[in-house]
This record gives sequence, C-alpha cells and structure tokens, in this order.
Amino acid sequence: MYSHTLMHSETLEIPQRVAEQVELNVSKIKKVAAHIRSGAPNLIVTCGRGSSAHAAIYAKYLFELSLGLPVASFAPSIASVYGANLKLEGALFLAVSQSGRSPDLIAAAESARVSGAYVVAVVNDEECPLSTVAHEVIPIRAGVENSVAATKTCVGAMSVLYDLCAELTRSQEKRGALKALPGTLKMALQCDWSSACAVMRTADQALIIGRGLGLSAASEAALKLKETCEIQAESYSAAEIKHGPMAIVRKGYSVIAAAMPDGSGASVHAIAHEFLKREANVYVVAARSKMSQESSGLHMPEAEEPCLQPLIFLQAFYLFANRLSIERGLNPDRPLSLQKVTETT
Amino acid sequence: MYSHTLMHSETLEIPQRVAEQVELNVSKIKKVAAHIRSGAPNLIVTCGRGSSAHAAIYAKYLFELSLGLPVASFAPSIASVYGANLKLEGALFLAVSQSGRSPDLIAAAESARVSGAYVVAVVNDEECPLSTVAHEVIPIRAGVENSVAATKTCVGAMSVLYDLCAELTRSQEKRGALKALPGTLKMALQCDWSSACAVMRTADQALIIGRGLGLSAASEAALKLKETCEIQAESYSAAEIKHGPMAIVRKGYSVIAAAMPDGSGASVHAIAHEFLKREANVYVVAARSKMSQESSGLHMPEAEEPCLQPLIFLQAFYLFANRLSIERGLNPDRPLSLQKVTETT
Repeated sequence: MYSHTLMHSETLEIPQRVAEQVELNVSKIKKVAAHIRSGAPNLIVTCGRGSSAHAAIYAKYLFELSLGLPVASFAPSIASVYGANLKLEGALFLAVSQSGRSPDLIAAAESARVSGAYVVAVVNDEECPLSTVAHEVIPIRAGVENSVAATKTCVGAMSVLYDLCAELTRSQEKRGALKALPGTLKMALQCDWSSACAVMRTADQALIIGRGLGLSAASEAALKLKETCEIQAESYSAAEIKHGPMAIVRKGYSVIAAAMPDGSGASVHAIAHEFLKREANVYVVAARSKMSQESSGLHMPEAEEPCLQPLIFLQAFYLFANRLSIERGLNPDRPLSLQKVTETT
Repeated sequence: MYSHTLMHSETLEIPQRVAEQVELNVSKIKKVAAHIRSGAPNLIVTCGRGSSAHAAIYAKYLFELSLGLPVASFAPSIASVYGANLKLEGALFLAVSQSGRSPDLIAAAESARVSGAYVVAVVNDEECPLSTVAHEVIPIRAGVENSVAATKTCVGAMSVLYDLCAELTRSQEKRGALKALPGTLKMALQCDWSSACAVMRTADQALIIGRGLGLSAASEAALKLKETCEIQAESYSAAEIKHGPMAIVRKGYSVIAAAMPDGSGASVHAIAHEFLKREANVYVVAARSKMSQESSGLHMPEAEEPCLQPLIFLQAFYLFANRLSIERGLNPDRPLSLQKVTETT
C-alpha cells in the first residue's frame, strides 16, 4: 500500500543508479580530480539549495576530514541580491543542483568563475544553464526524477562527491567502500521503521538529531518530513541543541536521533538518553552493532566506511517518509504548493 | 507587568552597553585590525554556538559584502570529535562566545591556532579559557549576563564585529553609523509589537523569514522563541523556504518576516505575500519607510547603515519575546532544563 508513489519507486532505484553512476563517471572523476590537484586549492566553496544544500553539508565534513581543506558555503544572495564578488582565486567551487536552473545558483557560479575559482557542477540534468557556466560537469545520472521530493538525486549527488573525494585522496579504502555501496543501499531497503511510523502519525513537530557527518542526513530528513508529511521537523547537531532549542522537547514530543558509527555517535546517543528522561518519543537510528539498549531503536545496515553512513540512513529514511506521508493521509508526490523545479532569484 | 525579568532588564541595557563598548574598544580594534591587514588573510573562519553562532552568521554576510573575503564556519566537531586540523595558514579565525568555556569551542580555536590562523576571540568574560588560546581578545563589555537567554551579549558581539569591519574597511560611513547605533537601539525599545503577541500566545510553531544580512537576526529570533516561549520556531531564508519547507505553512500558521532595508527586503515581502494568500498569520517587520500595505506590519526604526539593521531588529525582538513568554505563562529567565553556560564537547 506504500509502493504506488513516485517517491517510493524512485527511492527503490537508488542502489542501481548509484552503481551505474560510479561505473560511468570513472574517467570524468579522474579528469576533474587531476585538474583540482594541479590547481592545489586552499579552499573549497559549495553552493546548493534544498536537498542539494544537504549534499553540500555532507561535502563540507567529507572534504574537511579527508583533505584538511576548509569548506565554505556560498550564500547565493551574495551574488544575486547584493551583486558582490568574493576573492576566490584558486578555490574549488562545487555547485550542486538537480535541475541546474535556479537563477541565483547560476549567478553564484558565474560570480565564482569570474573571481578565479575552478567551477565544478554536480547536476542531474546535464543540459542545464548551470553546466554552461561551469568548467566541468559531473553528472549524477539518477535518471528523470518526477517526484517533487528529491530522493535519488540527493543520494546521487552525495555519492558523486564521495567518489571525487576518494579519487582526490587516492584512498583504496574509499574506492572499495564505494564499490560496496550499492549493495549496502539495497540492504537498507529492507529496514522496518514501522514502529516510529505508528507514533509519528499524529505528530506536528519533530527534531532530527545528528552530528558531524550525520548532520547532512539529519537536515535532509527534516526537510522530507516538512515537505511530504507536513511535520515541522528541524535538524540539530547533538551539541547545538543544548544551546537553547532543547526547551521545546517535552513528554510525547518526537525525536529521531541519527547515530553514525564514528566518533560523533556517542553524543547523539547521549542527547537521546536525555530526551528519553523527558518522556519524549525518541527513535535512535543506528547500525545494528551500535544499537543502544536504552531506547526504541531503528536499525540500519552499516556502510563499509563510516563516511558513507549518511547515504545509508537516507536510503532507509526516504522509504519511511513515504510511508509516514501516506499514513497521515497525504500524497508525498503532491506536497502543498510545491513544484519540482524551484527557481529562486 | 513584563519588566520584572532579567531578560527584560538586560535587553534595556543594550544601547548603553554598546555605547560603552564602542568607546572603550577603540585602541583594541585598531590594533587587531592593523594585525589582520598586515597578514592579508584570504579567508575568514568563524566559530560559535547558540546566539554566538548567529553573530557569526552576521559576520559572514558583513565581511563577505564589505571585504569580499570568503567566510567559512568552523564546525567544532571537526576538532573535538574527529580530532582533525584544517589548513588555515594565514586565515583569520574569529571565535565568538559569551562565556568562552565550551570545550569544543576551545578545541576549535586551539586547532586553528596550530594550523596557522590568527585567532581573535570575541568574548564577554575576558578571563575565560578561550582567551588564553587566542592571539587577541576583543571584549563585548556587556556586563554580567544572568538571563539564560542571551540578549545583550549577542547584539554586543555583533556590534564588535561591525566595529572591526568598519576599521578594516576604513569606512567613515560605517564608523558614523556605529556612533549613531546606541540612539537607534534606544528608539527600538519603543516598538509596540503587541498585536503579534496576542496572536502568537497560543502558537506552537512558527517560521521566521529573513534573507542575506537579515538571516542572522531571523536565526537568533527563532532560537529565542524556542528557549523562552517553547514555540518551535525555525528560521529560513526567503529563497530556501521555497525548496520544500513551505509545505508546513497553512491557515493560522504564524510567520514573522524580517525585511531588511536593502536588496534582500523585496524577496522577504514577496514570500510574506504568498503566505498571506494561505491565510497564515503573517507579521512583516520593516523600517517605517519600507512598510508594506498588504500585511500586518510591525515597525522598527531604521539604522543609519543597512548592515546594522539586524541589531535594531533584535533589540525590538527581545522585548517582544520576553513579553510573549510571560503571556504564555512562562518565565523567560527559567527555560526548561537550560543552564546559562552550555559546555559542549
């Protein structure tokens, strides 16, 4: 009963699409990585909106941890509203977009190129205006995405970024983990999170907690609950939540805690424990080997390399959001007043 | 009846504290600015948590627009959880904190210093561990802040950052506007936003819309509604909100739109108009000369220079949040389970 939507069928496509992408992008990734290496950038700047912004958060942690390069986020308004250029000589500029058609994103990429950055567009629709502005385009290869809620293009953008990082770091471990990724994503399709569905059927509010690499997945999950389930879900790092916002968590409040199998997981488990003491409905999502005894746990398979865990989480989460949307009497393919291509200026 | 709280009295102190700060920091600001200029940084990195993170968002737009330097945000977990160092040779690292005692913030500043950055701490408590890690300390001079919800330290941190920017750009216009700031802040104490109070008395959810420079103020306002009013308020840029999250805005939903008197104001007015069509309760906050005819408007005095408008907005907003908290039967000085000093690791 949950399988008739576009969101569902496109989520099921993810493992196969990622496998094709990794295979077909080999020479492109090598070429772009070689060019980046030759330029020896001291800064990476990302730009994206919506789900693509969450892929950009993923890139921030991934590249900072793997390459030690600082990663800044380019606010499109700097170019499109204020008409300002930044000093980006020698920087790597990564523009992420499904459609590649948002005027403000194109203005940002143009501004970065004029400022001396090497502009790489990660896009699903290669024949887009953003491509004409970029020095190089890496295709996401997710196929046509008809669901208004992005699923396969978001995980696909993340796997492109991971692929580029693996090539830049020449990490055999990362390359091996990427080859194994489609298989683990397929396993994630079997996750049963129906216990959380039952409780969140009537929720109007929720928090999604992550930290570090997991913050990208938490942010994307929160957006999906807003757009497909009309739940005001907000993502927070397990540390940032303590600086005030946790005041809203009371008995019966819904919390999903995405615990990654790296050093960040402990603080996510700790804040989940704190919210359980307040009698909130807390669901900790963890790899089976890291399951906490003390809370309602949702299982996810473990990625071969911790940096890939956010993609595994999202694979399972998208199915969950689709089901929750339907259980709430909504149609995830027809969110209130939203279009597929959002052109912001 | 709204004036017996610490939050209220500390909010009233802001104009005087800022005036003292500007006067007493003259030589310190000159010294730090001279050192920054001599180092010719090509990157600014900020770090802060909670309200200080919002001052850091303000710094991002301010320095990017005024100096053209890219501004990145340092995620404390990179240092404290993952133990990684970034390549920050020659960068300017701005650590913002009220207490200067969060272990993860101190770890971040230490990591930046080891990586070759020039570390400047903007703190209220000068005798803090963070100060010992920094090359230079610029005091916020807000006096002791006892209210759990930060008010004067946040606006104070923002005015320090503006002061530094004015000195770095040698802008007579910015210096003049800074001198006039306490007077405009004082005028903002007269703002009457009681109409919004009446409607939001029973709200559990809200959105605060800003864009560009105004996004910092929107983020800080959303945090204040969470911690003092137990309203799940989230901030969004007028552009980002279109990428899915606006699905949650229906009839009767509360929206505060912070329209700055610069190029970003138009998109904030436009999204407010869209939400009015959905019969949401929309309050547009604008300078009197920029008031929209079509929505319930809340007035704020206009800063001499548009970059200072977020501080004016917050001056008025803090009084509003204090009043709304009390009208909701809460005590803004005693938020649920929060302490004044939040030590995150």
